[in-house]
Amino acid sequence: MEESKIDRPIGVFDSGVGGLTVLDAVRQALPHEDLVYLGDTARVPYGNRTPQTIVRYATSCARQLVNRHVKAIVIACNTASAHALDALNEAFDVPVFGVIEPASRMAVDVSKSKCIGIIGTRATIASQAYTRAIQAIDPNAHVYGLACPLFVPLVEEGWAETDVARLVVRKYLEDLIALSNGHEMDTLILGCTHYPVLKSLIQETLASLDRHMVLCDCAQATAKSLVEHLKDRHLLRQTSESGWSDYLVTDDPQQFSAVGRSFMHEPPVNVSHIDIV
Amino acid sequence: MEESKIDRPIGVFDSGVGGLTVLDAVRQALPHEDLVYLGDTARVPYGNRTPQTIVRYATSCARQLVNRHVKAIVIACNTASAHALDALNEAFDVPVFGVIEPASRMAVDVSKSKCIGIIGTRATIASQAYTRAIQAIDPNAHVYGLACPLFVPLVEEGWAETDVARLVVRKYLEDLIALSNGHEMDTLILGCTHYPVLKSLIQETLASLDRHMVLCDCAQATAKSLVEHLKDRHLLRQTSESGWSDYLVTDDPQQFSAVGRSFMHEPPVNVSHIDIV
Repeated sequence: MEESKIDRPIGVFDSGVGGLTVLDAVRQALPHEDLVYLGDTARVPYGNRTPQTIVRYATSCARQLVNRHVKAIVIACNTASAHALDALNEAFDVPVFGVIEPASRMAVDVSKSKCIGIIGTRATIASQAYTRAIQAIDPNAHVYGLACPLFVPLVEEGWAETDVARLVVRKYLEDLIALSNGHEMDTLILGCTHYPVLKSLIQETLASLDRHMVLCDCAQATAKSLVEHLKDRHLLRQTSESGWSDYLVTDDPQQFSAVGRSFMHEPPVNVSHIDIV
Repeated sequence: MEESKIDRPIGVFDSGVGGLTVLDAVRQALPHEDLVYLGDTARVPYGNRTPQTIVRYATSCARQLVNRHVKAIVIACNTASAHALDALNEAFDVPVFGVIEPASRMAVDVSKSKCIGIIGTRATIASQAYTRAIQAIDPNAHVYGLACPLFVPLVEEGWAETDVARLVVRKYLEDLIALSNGHEMDTLILGCTHYPVLKSLIQETLASLDRHMVLCDCAQATAKSLVEHLKDRHLLRQTSESGWSDYLVTDDPQQFSAVGRSFMHEPPVNVSHIDIV
């Protein structure tokens, strides 16, 4: 593999700030890699667009990253992963990763009861993308999905550690457990890139409800799958230097930095505005 | 005025379910009128669209209502009112009402301190549409706006009467009061069509914080302004019969009926699907 390719950055894009949890997981797993994050904040959310529009938006984001010579692209967005992964893999030469397949595979691998819960936005749950991905791996798996529309605004308000979040998380988890109707749900997919911010609270709440589930965080699962791919293809940088992170957004950089700080170990800096048409 | 025109229905449209609070206020004020509600649920929310797109969507909704021979149109949506009111009034012969001007006028009329609070979605607050409307009426008015992004999902989940709602309402009202920085805010505009569902809770919470504010509910203000207009022009039906209500939506009618029941004294029935291009 020519050295120049190894030293190229990894591109990560999302419709907004949520994908920062994926970027953060990639950063934790790969401290020496350079990362470019693109948040298409002017067109967020993708969830209520038509599939054709989503493919068009995702393609324009991926093109920006390809123009910056990335060696791999991560679609850090559930909606875009569900609709645009195949199109992007066809359109571009660099490998493209979505969040749905890695999280689904992790869930099937860890679940003993093969009764798997999935929480996400209304659009993700309604799309049944995780259910299809899980049942493609194990047709006998039972999947129970619940939309949790309050989680995204809770996280974006920076309220993840408040009493409000505590009450909301408990209410949704009780509803999810009720859905499974006595089956022993032993695995829960956090099927929205915002939800890793609520992970500890979800874990605590499950413990307080005396429920034991392994949480499959789509951010971590995707980072893991990216690492394996790059390692197999000898595409990881051979250096002890820390990698840099650059941020591009299509709307206001300041608002992005302010909201984004809840999502990461180190808050986003070097945020620039770009226009995408 | 020819009789046939008097007997025509009143058209109300919104990007989704929120406008049902406006429809409900119109129904309470005008029990004998026929009403057609159009919820453009396939394209909700309008808040993150470009102004050009919002005008295009609003025009297509208004055209559907004009084709149904309405005698007046209410834009029961803050985003569409901010961007499309003038365009619709130019494009169509029937009078068109928005929600922003009536609520702003009501607030200026009732406020003694001329220190007015406004709560709404992120898009509405960022647009400064209410601030401009209020200061066009009274240039000396002070206006303090706060976005409350958890209110819409709270209402749509049917959680308006839960402990979660109680905590969230208190948090936002405390933040709003802090914003006004010692000025005596005596009037609060509920600048989102979802918020009337939280009105009693907002009122109780203000009382518990020992704050006295008149709530200007954009639904009631708009209904009041519509009634005055129709009365002045002798366009109110002369009958003791109850009027009917018809509902048209561009996405799933069932989900609309389910979510819509929190918004009205009588839940929506006769919901049909239509396509708008």
